Amino acid sequence: MVAKSEIKFIKSLQQKKNRMEHGLFVAEGVKMVQDLLDSGLKVHSVYATEADLYTGTTGEVSLLSAADLRRMSSLKNPNKGLAVFYMRTGDNPGYEGFSVVLDDIQDPGNLGTIIRLCDWFGVDQLVCSRETVDCYNPKVLQATMGSIARVKISYTDLGAYLSSANCPVYGSYMSATPVYSAAMPKEGILVMGNEAHGISEKVKQYLTHKVSIPAQEGSGAESLNVATATAILLYEMRRP
Amino acid sequence: MVAKSEIKFIKSLQQKKNRMEHGLFVAEGVKMVQDLLDSGLKVHSVYATEADLYTGTTGEVSLLSAADLRRMSSLKNPNKGLAVFYMRTGDNPGYEGFSVVLDDIQDPGNLGTIIRLCDWFGVDQLVCSRETVDCYNPKVLQATMGSIARVKISYTDLGAYLSSANCPVYGSYMSATPVYSAAMPKEGILVMGNEAHGISEKVKQYLTHKVSIPAQEGSGAESLNVATATAILLYEMRRP
Repeated sequence: MVAKSEIKFIKSLQQKKNRMEHGLFVAEGVKMVQDLLDSGLKVHSVYATEADLYTGTTGEVSLLSAADLRRMSSLKNPNKGLAVFYMRTGDNPGYEGFSVVLDDIQDPGNLGTIIRLCDWFGVDQLVCSRETVDCYNPKVLQATMGSIARVKISYTDLGAYLSSANCPVYGSYMSATPVYSAAMPKEGILVMGNEAHGISEKVKQYLTHKVSIPAQEGSGAESLNVATATAILLYEMRRP
Repeated sequence: MVAKSEIKFIKSLQQKKNRMEHGLFVAEGVKMVQDLLDSGLKVHSVYATEADLYTGTTGEVSLLSAADLRRMSSLKNPNKGLAVFYMRTGDNPGYEGFSVVLDDIQDPGNLGTIIRLCDWFGVDQLVCSRETVDCYNPKVLQATMGSIARVKISYTDLGAYLSSANCPVYGSYMSATPVYSAAMPKEGILVMGNEAHGISEKVKQYLTHKVSIPAQEGSGAESLNVATATAILLYEMRRP
């Protein structure tokens, strides 16, 4: 039996201001919850509709009805399990290895896909402007496919962060040096801009290189989606 | 004034079976409608809430109230214009140039993103299995950002199509020859598999090459999203 107040509290974590206030976020779905339990994130509470769903967990698992799970879920079709985790405490972002910087990414699916890409290509950290969509937004979490547990993410003032960078800072542009002929560095920073407006004026001044992904001559397409552009640039960065 | 029956008819085109029966589909949003009007697709009807929205159109534009537009729209926030177009009549897919083949892609956002990528990288045609999500699905159309007007798309039996192919047929796999060392051809076919199950058994037999996008050593990510993988492989195919 789960108390009404508990359901209400978990439901409230769908809103960013409540997540920030409590330093907590909600993960849903059998696999996602298991991935996060395995990742070493600090666990607040775990709920499941089946007794043996998360038997490997050290903490307590609260059994609940499918109806109660539906009440606390952000999904149309909740999937057996839900857990509340403590957010990672925000270390200041560093400059080691290869970092991706996001300048006001707004679409949750784009951010989730980029987090998954950072995991795949072994990016050391993801640094987001404060205006970038919250990585603990339920739609972002779903799109990360569990990668949220493995990528170091911070939100910060990009001007302050980039002004102290002592490494190559690449920015993705619609037209600039084609990335085919611009060898991407193994260490450094890649900045990706907002879906509609690209890289902002205040960030642009810190770029040391501008690169672009050329379209086929005669193509009528105006742009690439920011997540697919990130995929291509990270792939190029990892070229042996 | 738009008749109730007209609203009902347009609303009915949100379902694939009705689209197929009438050979019509609906496009929404000022820019998308304009792109399709410019593309030379045959127009069935155009609706707008402002008189001067589509003045360049040769056909008649029906003025309607925002309330009526909302009634016929599939969007939460309809955006001034909506138009009904005739689908392209399905030519049999050929083998010239570079083709992308989709083996049961289910997610509308993925298909829309792949159509946009085909436009960007100048892919000559996109050939979909009959089980692939309908490219005239409203969510697919939105994700194409207008590229639907410029990419030649057909739905066919992939076994029949691939069995007559006389060119390299590449398939994307989780582990195979790393694409970094497998030069992609300028002409040929690239097969991308279903989001959960990859390339099906019946299609696998026609592949001449298998390629993969390697993850960074030690990455915990299990897979790349199919649209981001397509982005990387098309980028590689267009490498000068």
